Amino acid sequence: MLSHRLTNKPSRSVKPVPEQMRAVQLDRYDPDLDVAIESLSVVSKPVPWPGRGQVLIKIEAAPCNPSDLLFLQGLYGVTKTLPSMPGWEGAGTVVKAGEGLLGRMLLDRRVACAAQADVDGTWAEYFVTEARLCVPLNKQVSFEQGAMLIINPLTALALFEECVKGRHRAAVHTAGASQLGRMLARLAVRRQYPMIHIVRREEQVAQLKALGAEVVLNCEHENFYAILHHQAERLGATIALDAVAGPMTGRVLKAMPAGSKAVVYGVLSNLACGEIHPYDLIFQDKRIEGFWLTPWLLRKGMISTMRLASRAQGLIAGGVFDSKVRARLSFDEIRSGLRDYHRRMSEGKVLIYPAVK
Amino acid sequence: MLSHRLTNKPSRSVKPVPEQMRAVQLDRYDPDLDVAIESLSVVSKPVPWPGRGQVLIKIEAAPCNPSDLLFLQGLYGVTKTLPSMPGWEGAGTVVKAGEGLLGRMLLDRRVACAAQADVDGTWAEYFVTEARLCVPLNKQVSFEQGAMLIINPLTALALFEECVKGRHRAAVHTAGASQLGRMLARLAVRRQYPMIHIVRREEQVAQLKALGAEVVLNCEHENFYAILHHQAERLGATIALDAVAGPMTGRVLKAMPAGSKAVVYGVLSNLACGEIHPYDLIFQDKRIEGFWLTPWLLRKGMISTMRLASRAQGLIAGGVFDSKVRARLSFDEIRSGLRDYHRRMSEGKVLIYPAVK
Repeated sequence: MLSHRLTNKPSRSVKPVPEQMRAVQLDRYDPDLDVAIESLSVVSKPVPWPGRGQVLIKIEAAPCNPSDLLFLQGLYGVTKTLPSMPGWEGAGTVVKAGEGLLGRMLLDRRVACAAQADVDGTWAEYFVTEARLCVPLNKQVSFEQGAMLIINPLTALALFEECVKGRHRAAVHTAGASQLGRMLARLAVRRQYPMIHIVRREEQVAQLKALGAEVVLNCEHENFYAILHHQAERLGATIALDAVAGPMTGRVLKAMPAGSKAVVYGVLSNLACGEIHPYDLIFQDKRIEGFWLTPWLLRKGMISTMRLASRAQGLIAGGVFDSKVRARLSFDEIRSGLRDYHRRMSEGKVLIYPAVK
Repeated sequence: MLSHRLTNKPSRSVKPVPEQMRAVQLDRYDPDLDVAIESLSVVSKPVPWPGRGQVLIKIEAAPCNPSDLLFLQGLYGVTKTLPSMPGWEGAGTVVKAGEGLLGRMLLDRRVACAAQADVDGTWAEYFVTEARLCVPLNKQVSFEQGAMLIINPLTALALFEECVKGRHRAAVHTAGASQLGRMLARLAVRRQYPMIHIVRREEQVAQLKALGAEVVLNCEHENFYAILHHQAERLGATIALDAVAGPMTGRVLKAMPAGSKAVVYGVLSNLACGEIHPYDLIFQDKRIEGFWLTPWLLRKGMISTMRLASRAQGLIAGGVFDSKVRARLSFDEIRSGLRDYHRRMSEGKVLIYPAVK
């Protein structure tokens, strides 16, 4: 069947590619994350075939991000026809290319890759995506760090760009202890940009300060909102990067100066935004919007995106965008591993390894 | 004392102006509207003196708007040092002018006028404001309609401009039966602009349809949000003009197409905005902002504002912006009259008449 395919479709293969592969399969969406995780199974299925403009990648590692959990719940911005393979990003080697120059240029290259909206994801031994959704990896960037190159680092760079280009003198970040929060903290220190980091536990205050962050506030503190108000006024923090949502969105916005906006980019609280004071909107010119990386990058265009990805690799190599890995899972460990990840998200990333460890 | 003043300060007086006047005085703000209304009293105090660029107006009538109730509660965007006179707009005759060309040009003219942020308001026999906050009234516009020229008609024109300039194919208005809602309905019919009007009672559906509105939805209907979703998608309504706030803001926004925004300009529900689905913000590019007429007009500049006021007078004379008056109050009836206005706001405006009726 492999030879039949080869004669049928123009493409090049440099390494032997099997006909069958193992992959993680999602059978049904469920807003209850535990139910959705329980429906994951490891299946054997044919290795997919790259079409025009696409490449086939042998996956080395793929992370689980909060956006993957949302996908399992059916709450992400994109849903697929099930059963399908989850996984929005990963890293590996391009082993086949469909028609098209870009794909052929990537052949045999180590790449970070993002999944297309309408095809299977990265939690598989092999994975097909568009060549333009791949970023060749520098030598200094491992497969492991490369697997986490796109979603978190590019989101951090994009949000940082929103702060600076929007002429906000300083910013508030509502999930300071998250992996993305730590990236933003290191980036802000490096660029000498004032940022107020909100965390939930006292040890996280120390962790963020160890990265060089100056203003780290524990939201469990009884005077938290008064202190936030004072610091936001003092620094001129007029943008809140909000990964938490829920009632915190309105409360944080209320503590900020007139003219501030909240940019909601995550839903760690799993709650609807609330407590948004209409008088803040009307009389203080405050506003609320969302941020999603995918359309943001599309608006930037491919060349700017590649430039951003190249900058992200430099920052990974320089330790600024180092993602902490807390667990490495085989396919067979995925259900318990993801449940554990969800409970202890701020302690580090979970990576999925298709190769038997 | 009057003669002392005249020699002391350059100004012109065409009619005899008494030294003392009656006015409504607010002694303390209270978020509980009933308590705030109870603290209103009728006092006798010196007629104020117009300074440079200001005029003195003999008030004929002044309305109570929702923004006045917010002011009594201390929730409006401007608070004054108390005791002070409430009233953000009114109409009357300019009887004195301070230094400055504009004021002198207005002398003896019938004007609509708005109050300054830092001085006493229009619920008084006489009232001082900046000449640039006055609009000379056309002959076709009565004092009574002129008293309501600025806040509602200019807000209606401003919101309508936001809809059209923002390239929204259609709009949703959450307070269709309000006086402003009826103005927007007539304006939309006249300009053939599709608008979805949300009302709270079945008889209001008929009232709005009698004005020519095509899509009027009763939010008490059990399938309301499904119908709203259908109509908003069909018409391409991507802006919600929201005078209600509370949970309705998020629910209406959820029913609208991707890319929609809610513009909160009133707080009729007296509740914080809530139920705003973060996924709507992130994955559907929805957003929420506020609208306040004062800074909007300041951004437009004085010439554009005068042009807008002139257009509003034409629309009042043409019956498009006709405000229904439900009650005319003397100063002594103000407490019971305002309580009644608050309970039955959509039935019409309440006007305050300084002259004994």
